[in-house]
Amino acid sequence: MFTSPSKLKNILRLNSINDADINNDLIFLKPRASLFHTALPDLPTAVVYCEGNFGKIDGKTANGLVRHSQKYRILSVIDSESANLDSGEMLDQKTNGIPIVANIEEAIVREGIAPDYFIFGIAPSSGLLSNIEKNVILNAMSLKMHIVNGLHEFLTDDPIFLDASLKHNVQILDIRKPKNKENLQTFSGKIHNVKCPRIAVMGTDCALGKRTTATMLADELTTKGLKVVMIATGQTGIMQGASYCVALDAVPSQFCAGELESVIVKAYEAETPDIIIIEGQGALSHPAFSTSSFILRGSCPTSVILQHAPKRIHRTDFPNMPMPSVASEISLIETFSDTTVIGLTLNHEGMSLDDIFTAMVGYSTELGIPVTDPLSQPIEQLIDMVQSVYPHIASKLAEKR
Amino acid sequence: MFTSPSKLKNILRLNSINDADINNDLIFLKPRASLFHTALPDLPTAVVYCEGNFGKIDGKTANGLVRHSQKYRILSVIDSESANLDSGEMLDQKTNGIPIVANIEEAIVREGIAPDYFIFGIAPSSGLLSNIEKNVILNAMSLKMHIVNGLHEFLTDDPIFLDASLKHNVQILDIRKPKNKENLQTFSGKIHNVKCPRIAVMGTDCALGKRTTATMLADELTTKGLKVVMIATGQTGIMQGASYCVALDAVPSQFCAGELESVIVKAYEAETPDIIIIEGQGALSHPAFSTSSFILRGSCPTSVILQHAPKRIHRTDFPNMPMPSVASEISLIETFSDTTVIGLTLNHEGMSLDDIFTAMVGYSTELGIPVTDPLSQPIEQLIDMVQSVYPHIASKLAEKR
Repeated sequence: MFTSPSKLKNILRLNSINDADINNDLIFLKPRASLFHTALPDLPTAVVYCEGNFGKIDGKTANGLVRHSQKYRILSVIDSESANLDSGEMLDQKTNGIPIVANIEEAIVREGIAPDYFIFGIAPSSGLLSNIEKNVILNAMSLKMHIVNGLHEFLTDDPIFLDASLKHNVQILDIRKPKNKENLQTFSGKIHNVKCPRIAVMGTDCALGKRTTATMLADELTTKGLKVVMIATGQTGIMQGASYCVALDAVPSQFCAGELESVIVKAYEAETPDIIIIEGQGALSHPAFSTSSFILRGSCPTSVILQHAPKRIHRTDFPNMPMPSVASEISLIETFSDTTVIGLTLNHEGMSLDDIFTAMVGYSTELGIPVTDPLSQPIEQLIDMVQSVYPHIASKLAEKR
Repeated sequence: MFTSPSKLKNILRLNSINDADINNDLIFLKPRASLFHTALPDLPTAVVYCEGNFGKIDGKTANGLVRHSQKYRILSVIDSESANLDSGEMLDQKTNGIPIVANIEEAIVREGIAPDYFIFGIAPSSGLLSNIEKNVILNAMSLKMHIVNGLHEFLTDDPIFLDASLKHNVQILDIRKPKNKENLQTFSGKIHNVKCPRIAVMGTDCALGKRTTATMLADELTTKGLKVVMIATGQTGIMQGASYCVALDAVPSQFCAGELESVIVKAYEAETPDIIIIEGQGALSHPAFSTSSFILRGSCPTSVILQHAPKRIHRTDFPNMPMPSVASEISLIETFSDTTVIGLTLNHEGMSLDDIFTAMVGYSTELGIPVTDPLSQPIEQLIDMVQSVYPHIASKLAEKR
């Protein structure tokens, strides 16, 4: 399982890397310009581990990171089942220059250097590591990479990983680890002092594009000149570099609403944004993952955009749990919370362009709200969804034109 | 803050306790018959600390324990503001022989012995201890009492308490501490293999009698010969001695539904009960405490009994949050979950008997469901609520008559 230094040396030699570099530990500790990319921003580098899952549902952390990463420069993705493909091409039919490699050794050889960070990019529903995965991480630590772990299982609670961290002088970042108890907040109602629009992007299931839609909306409004804060509520958004975030599903339920409220209030006071976008989690109707109840309670959104995959038949990972109808999800959200669903966004998995148009017209007629697919349709449709409900935002956007 | 041995000795001497007893540490470690009660069941003894809060909302743990305790024999309650009163008389106008005392020294003098356990019986909404309270607990440990702590702040995480535990050879029970991550369950759907009725007792607010109603229902059905399992979901029910329990508000939200499901499935498989009663938490509509969303998801109750305090104007601890209407709470519960609210139970705080009758008739007419007040009305009304919906339970009860 572990890569011996001599084996790694041999691998690197085959790729004409200097022995002196290999024997110098610093090569593994400091970011260095890649052999293949130049003029990239000065971010720490990372490889994302997603064995057997890249492009799939449980690989959503890796999928998110190759699409969008403000905190790390992603050099490659590890998944032997898709090795040698371009991750962007595989995911979105758009080349992004981030290759998929078969294993960690190949990732290092490919770049001529060990990345600064090894990101564990699989998000199984159990949230726990297998023994094989633990060994992969220990191997990365032995190769001098810092570890970014988004699972519920905290590596910093495990003496084996703590020992490895000391031994190899690398850090472990347990992204989901909540604050200490004494610093956790209960809901206070201070959210009602936040005077700008707060849009929650919710969904009818897990892993169907809520974060992607929220990110696209936030990015486009920012491009158009608005001051936007995006609140990340899951591990992927945090790894992507969100400045305001809380890994809500790892917080004891007593504090979920309060922790989300407090991060939004903090963002509002620090940034005085024009608008706040909140990433939803799971689905309010989800039998297993209804943390969205706290998204609604904690953020008291002034409106909701709902994400849905029309061709999805059952909930992800739960073959016996059928998907809800969009109408029932909207009714549930609007009964549960004093808010309004202002639009529907589609995940086009398994759909042709014709299917997408048919679905857009069908839902729009049935529900009486605008419908778009942010990944295939003009982004203006998503912006119009917001402008039509918030004249103040429309005016600001008009001013910036 | 701390009671010196000599001071305690003096206090005890004034009450004619033998010096030899005082100097013998064993006096503090082993349960002993009280000086004032005889022929009590062979349970460990406990004093419940509830300074400034007995009979009030934040004293709900203490209030619950003097009403019902299967795990500890409650000797006294500490609350200097109500010292010298009988706790049952104060709470329910029924003497129960459990005195309220001013402080821990008086509790010991009163019984002639330190109780086995010191139960921290205040449940502030923050879930955290003040420095004064920490010192009170350390004092109890120095007096050789084991500690039962139901707060979110775990004493076993604090080196000061761990040191005191070792020094004084006493245990700390952190009731709310969840299992290790690797043992936490996500929801699987196994709950649908549980074939007996599952009634969740939910409410329109925190601290308004859900647990009391659930306990009365469970006890009466048991008395009538049914096999009943009550699932405790909060710290008080666990302290009261529930065999099947999970402190839901301390569980990371990802695992809430699954942990509740798994304890119900375990109870069903081990006990093959005729009926399962699930204690609700907070209120589904509650802005701050909506852990009830996971009660509904995890237990998939076949029916719900809703508890309500007609004279309560705003949510407990939140003067700016008005109470919901009963009709809106029922609508929310039935929209959120595939279940039916089969009856309404009242908390008669601030009500005369006339008020209670008027409210019972009014709600019954408005909602078309049976209404009772378990504490003031015949318990048969609560039993009938269940029998009328479950003919199988009615038949079983008829057989046992």
